[in-house]
Amino acid sequence: MDTAHADTPTRRGRPGHDREAVLDAAVALFNERGYDATSVADVAGRLGVTKSALYHHFSSKEAVLELALGRALDSLEAALDQPRDGRSASAALRDVFRGATDALVTNLPYVTLLLRVRGNGPAEQAALARRRTFDQRVTALVAQAQGDGDIRDDVDASVVARLIFGMINSLVEWYRPGGAIDGSRLGHDVVTLALDGLRPAGAPRTQE
Amino acid sequence: MDTAHADTPTRRGRPGHDREAVLDAAVALFNERGYDATSVADVAGRLGVTKSALYHHFSSKEAVLELALGRALDSLEAALDQPRDGRSASAALRDVFRGATDALVTNLPYVTLLLRVRGNGPAEQAALARRRTFDQRVTALVAQAQGDGDIRDDVDASVVARLIFGMINSLVEWYRPGGAIDGSRLGHDVVTLALDGLRPAGAPRTQE
Repeated sequence: MDTAHADTPTRRGRPGHDREAVLDAAVALFNERGYDATSVADVAGRLGVTKSALYHHFSSKEAVLELALGRALDSLEAALDQPRDGRSASAALRDVFRGATDALVTNLPYVTLLLRVRGNGPAEQAALARRRTFDQRVTALVAQAQGDGDIRDDVDASVVARLIFGMINSLVEWYRPGGAIDGSRLGHDVVTLALDGLRPAGAPRTQE
Repeated sequence: MDTAHADTPTRRGRPGHDREAVLDAAVALFNERGYDATSVADVAGRLGVTKSALYHHFSSKEAVLELALGRALDSLEAALDQPRDGRSASAALRDVFRGATDALVTNLPYVTLLLRVRGNGPAEQAALARRRTFDQRVTALVAQAQGDGDIRDDVDASVVARLIFGMINSLVEWYRPGGAIDGSRLGHDVVTLALDGLRPAGAPRTQE
């Protein structure tokens, strides 16, 4: 790739593809070494291009982080943003659990980056604020499903939201694409455990 | 506290208490700043004592880490190490879920430290090896309960173990002692969700 800032898109092959490659490489390095410990030169080195080739796509390292975190949040929020279309709160909740699990499996490096965010700098602060809003919306959906009598109400709505998303988010710790566990099954597994728990069908329920 | 190494225990008040205070302060700092970024002088400063007062209790920073991680692991393993005493695998599993949740609530800073371990240095490597053994033992218990027909077998045993412990371990991200959520309820909440899921008693089961 040329070191000069080329204004002629035809010279750059597939600019969209290049931009994606930069994002993927940056996210991989942020996850491996941490955001602070990763330089723009590291990302360029990983891709075998020059720093100025990267600045053709992104104005700064923080802009890359912002875009990557935004992508993770977009994918997690997609199921929550679906129009209700007559679905009950509990049906919508189930779709949110499945959608978030599938989003995590599909965008594993991006969601991994998001879940490690601790609020250093404006991009991380903004991402944490969006995560809080997401959590509040899921809690509201749980409370609505409890009010409808469709899910148990002996566990606090915010605890339900946190425990189920704790289960979903834990995937970043152990799920690896191409490993022994089939990622396409995990949406089913999470929804099954979240809704029905471990008891086999027909077994008596726990008296806690 | 005196700066000299005192060999006369009577001068030191309650040595056991001092040792606990050092451990607690070190664990708090490791969690706040990271193990590498915490010096023995930092721990001494937090306690308002001298470095040599600390070396009375511990030979090195790594020795403090090793003891702290061992304590977290001991507390998580306690329920798993209980004699079976005629309990079924599924009853033992339930006790493991509840025991681990209660251990996490009770020893939050220690378990938080454990769950952040990435394997840098011998103490972290040893802790990771013990965590792997723990995971394998829980997976074996899940498989046994599945074989007994006491829990569902349409989700892989290792996925069950990971998802339920993902839920339990997520507590370190959001549970805070003295906050809005009652820690003594969480053992109940985790066992309820793990065994029976969100469906209210008597509702039809999901067809996934």
